Amino acid sequence: MLTGPDHLRVALDVIGIFAFAVSGGLVGVRARLDLFGVAVLAWTTGLGGGVVRDVFLGDVPPVGISDPLSVVTVLVAGLVVVAVYPWLAGLRRRNPGLPLRGIGSAVRHLDAVGLAVFAVSGSLKAVQLGAPPLACVFVGGITAVGGGAIRDVLVGQIPEVLRREVYAVPAVLGAAIIVVADRLDVLGAAVIWGTVVLVVAIRVAAIHLNLNIPTPPDQGVRP
Amino acid sequence: MLTGPDHLRVALDVIGIFAFAVSGGLVGVRARLDLFGVAVLAWTTGLGGGVVRDVFLGDVPPVGISDPLSVVTVLVAGLVVVAVYPWLAGLRRRNPGLPLRGIGSAVRHLDAVGLAVFAVSGSLKAVQLGAPPLACVFVGGITAVGGGAIRDVLVGQIPEVLRREVYAVPAVLGAAIIVVADRLDVLGAAVIWGTVVLVVAIRVAAIHLNLNIPTPPDQGVRP
Amino acid sequence: MLTGPDHLRVALDVIGIFAFAVSGGLVGVRARLDLFGVAVLAWTTGLGGGVVRDVFLGDVPPVGISDPLSVVTVLVAGLVVVAVYPWLAGLRRRNPGLPLRGIGSAVRHLDAVGLAVFAVSGSLKAVQLGAPPLACVFVGGITAVGGGAIRDVLVGQIPEVLRREVYAVPAVLGAAIIVVADRLDVLGAAVIWGTVVLVVAIRVAAIHLNLNIPTPPDQGVRP
Repeated sequence: MLTGPDHLRVALDVIGIFAFAVSGGLVGVRARLDLFGVAVLAWTTGLGGGVVRDVFLGDVPPVGISDPLSVVTVLVAGLVVVAVYPWLAGLRRRNPGLPLRGIGSAVRHLDAVGLAVFAVSGSLKAVQLGAPPLACVFVGGITAVGGGAIRDVLVGQIPEVLRREVYAVPAVLGAAIIVVADRLDVLGAAVIWGTVVLVVAIRVAAIHLNLNIPTPPDQGVRP
Repeated sequence: MLTGPDHLRVALDVIGIFAFAVSGGLVGVRARLDLFGVAVLAWTTGLGGGVVRDVFLGDVPPVGISDPLSVVTVLVAGLVVVAVYPWLAGLRRRNPGLPLRGIGSAVRHLDAVGLAVFAVSGSLKAVQLGAPPLACVFVGGITAVGGGAIRDVLVGQIPEVLRREVYAVPAVLGAAIIVVADRLDVLGAAVIWGTVVLVVAIRVAAIHLNLNIPTPPDQGVRP
Repeated sequence: MLTGPDHLRVALDVIGIFAFAVSGGLVGVRARLDLFGVAVLAWTTGLGGGVVRDVFLGDVPPVGISDPLSVVTVLVAGLVVVAVYPWLAGLRRRNPGLPLRGIGSAVRHLDAVGLAVFAVSGSLKAVQLGAPPLACVFVGGITAVGGGAIRDVLVGQIPEVLRREVYAVPAVLGAAIIVVADRLDVLGAAVIWGTVVLVVAIRVAAIHLNLNIPTPPDQGVRP
């Protein structure tokens, strides 16, 4: 979907799907799903946003159920979670002081790459299919955060993306930049890749600065 | 979508979206969502039913992500909730006896208008796109109650519409009247607007008479 | 959708929809839904998987909102649940030792028929509409288990299909057999009906042997 060096494009896409699928698989394990459920959660998280994107754009069957590379990436991520998780647990049991935060941090940074790539490639696909500008921004945002939202609903939780952190906003911003660049006729590889980098940068800054969107107070008024 | 005076049609549509979005925003604040989450809940509630309608009718991208007036209406409703809510809370804190039920009542009556307009315009759109009669009734009903159902699922609650009050039934009835009128070839402005008024009237009567659909007893049989 | 004797095909389809809708109606009664909610849950469970199938294949409006026989089957199932349930409860109250497991067992076996018919007919429809092989397998599996998953989400539960029993796997296997048979050009009535029987057999064996997919351990590691 992204223009530019094909290897880089595919690699980033696979990284994004993989990172999202790992987060889905972990949520599945913690929710005590069986192996099939963990695979479904990895798939939902890695490819669910793109499925909604394709349904909204009328490009069916969705890539998320058609493309072997995407599905294999998700299944490998699920297997990694299931295989690595008990091993990590054993490791920590034998070394109680072991810091495992490096792994969590790596997953969060890869997830930022996925967020950026999905937002940009989602809005780009919408632009290329001739969707109205506003729809292109929505589609980019939904591609980026939709999979994680479905993941949370499936395990009975309110989607994280609605509750805390600066997560969806950089994605929507990235999608909007793509749309504006298209209207200004400057949508080339430089803008596309620059936008990916910008979204990653904002998201990573939000992680490190622990930024949150304000939560409006609930003061118990029931009008 | 409705025929007849264009100003009236657009005004009713905006009223419906606004009322639904306010209810979504309020649910979002109560579920402790952040500002982005509140905006998403307002959007989901105000436009989610129409999004499902358009996906079911193959009219994509859905109006709910394409139409600037609809999206702006939703965002304004979200802002109103976030801005007015703390102000109301402060007002009540200073005047503990203050009755705020007038506001809640107004929202419920505007919601009845939204229910009626969405049911009628949803089934009308399906009729105009040549969908089978049964599908037109379903689409009208889903347009009217789908957004609220998604809102409830997103905050981890069983949809209100499945549990209590006479809410969906007048919507389905209104959609059915549109379909029957179309089959009888009498689908004009009089029938359309008469149906909107009828659905509003039934729903308002249900509010004031506190009508509920019966709940079948759960007697603990687990066959 | 299935080739072969038309009476048999329609009968199996109706049996599948009916069994799924009964399970949905029962879940609705236990979740304390009102009559409208019970009908919606019966509809969602009986026809929701097919609705997702049709949206993913671009065949809209979906059969689940268009086809009178399917919708009537679902409503009859809902009525049966609502009517039979209190009667069963009364029967047991008067005869505390009464074994009611025969009924539950019958529902589970009819459900196995539904699972098999939906998996096979779903993938068959995808094959006939020219979807890519991988998408055909997905669509078959989603047709079979999607309705039950939506049912569980609507009442605030993690989908059963993600948590226990050997349920989705025979469905996916059946869908895969259809796709492979199509690639090998041997997709005739024998293969189709043989696959239905095979999926039923595996599912019934799983019921009687109480088979479960392994659940990966959650050892409290939060990397």
